[in-house]
Amino acid sequence: MAAKQEQVKVLGKWPSPFSNRVELALKLKGISYVYSEQDLSNKSLELLSSNPVHKMVPVLIHNGIPISESLVIVEYIDETWKSNPFLPPHPFHRASARFWSKVVDDKCLPALWNAIWCDEKGREKAVEEAMEALKILENEIGDRRFFGGDEIGLVDISANFVGYWVDILQGIAGLQLLASEKFPKLYKWSQEFKTHPIVKQALPPREELFAFFKSRTA
Amino acid sequence: MAAKQEQVKVLGKWPSPFSNRVELALKLKGISYVYSEQDLSNKSLELLSSNPVHKMVPVLIHNGIPISESLVIVEYIDETWKSNPFLPPHPFHRASARFWSKVVDDKCLPALWNAIWCDEKGREKAVEEAMEALKILENEIGDRRFFGGDEIGLVDISANFVGYWVDILQGIAGLQLLASEKFPKLYKWSQEFKTHPIVKQALPPREELFAFFKSRTA
Repeated sequence: MAAKQEQVKVLGKWPSPFSNRVELALKLKGISYVYSEQDLSNKSLELLSSNPVHKMVPVLIHNGIPISESLVIVEYIDETWKSNPFLPPHPFHRASARFWSKVVDDKCLPALWNAIWCDEKGREKAVEEAMEALKILENEIGDRRFFGGDEIGLVDISANFVGYWVDILQGIAGLQLLASEKFPKLYKWSQEFKTHPIVKQALPPREELFAFFKSRTA
Repeated sequence: MAAKQEQVKVLGKWPSPFSNRVELALKLKGISYVYSEQDLSNKSLELLSSNPVHKMVPVLIHNGIPISESLVIVEYIDETWKSNPFLPPHPFHRASARFWSKVVDDKCLPALWNAIWCDEKGREKAVEEAMEALKILENEIGDRRFFGGDEIGLVDISANFVGYWVDILQGIAGLQLLASEKFPKLYKWSQEFKTHPIVKQALPPREELFAFFKSRTA
């Protein structure tokens, strides 16, 4: 599918789950791309001109045309390269996938991030909210292998933070958020997710991610 | 298109621009629906069971299946009833429409809402941010009739708050945010938007909306 004339470039930041969504989506489609690590403390002209509204990663540049916002990019990739679809064909199932991706972004990620990085004073309430968010995903995944069913789909890609980052960050924060005793189905999903042969290749190395976030707490 | 066996119901709240997006989308497609006004201070079992994650309006119930989140619903409507498409065919243009809808939701609406309802102390900064948000939309609309081009599209539907609510609310707050001198192109768009024959029918009456929000300031 990756025809030689296609020019696909990702402007990203390696520890970012949002950048990773884009790389993961491209790898799942088997699309070759050039990756350009961005320095957000000294933003490149390419980043500023590609995403003038947000000036943030990730940006996908496909044949010279830039697209921003990780989930918008993932849907673009799905519509451009049609093999291994991330979204099912029926409008209701598509709506459901978009709804759950939005739940991940609007509810779960802020709650988890807050529980991990908040100060001691706010921690009890923040952890409670994070547990509620995980409970919602536990109920949703049920007995399926992936949120997308038998294969990785839009919601699995959206939930990469839950499937990989949380385990590393909860260790740094001294918390147990996503644990097999509390959320057996979601925990099982996270294991399936991060050991999936393509996902595994797309995720940043565990030790480096740990060191990167650990240095934030110093 | 509205075959007799189709059962389409909207759970909404009439002054809400989010509910209005769903009604507007259905009217633009020419789909008949039953509207059920919800009391958010005493939520109905139908609402709670249809949207257990957020317990909020709007919800579209199509042949018994509920869908939540206004923009997810609008895309569902577009994929289910294909006449008068809200999204263009090319993946890049689709991504662009989704990106701009997200800019409206994540950047413009919070900034405008905050400028309108914040206390005096925070107002100067809030107004400045709202003006920046409007400037972004002014640049984007350019000389097009609608964000969707010649016809109303996803971004126009998403921006209904900017096109109609802001003018009413800025009057209540004693502000001039969206004015023709400051944002001539966006102002022109807002006039085109609210006088569009179908949009006009879908918008809540101006006097009632004014009275509803005015009562909040009492």
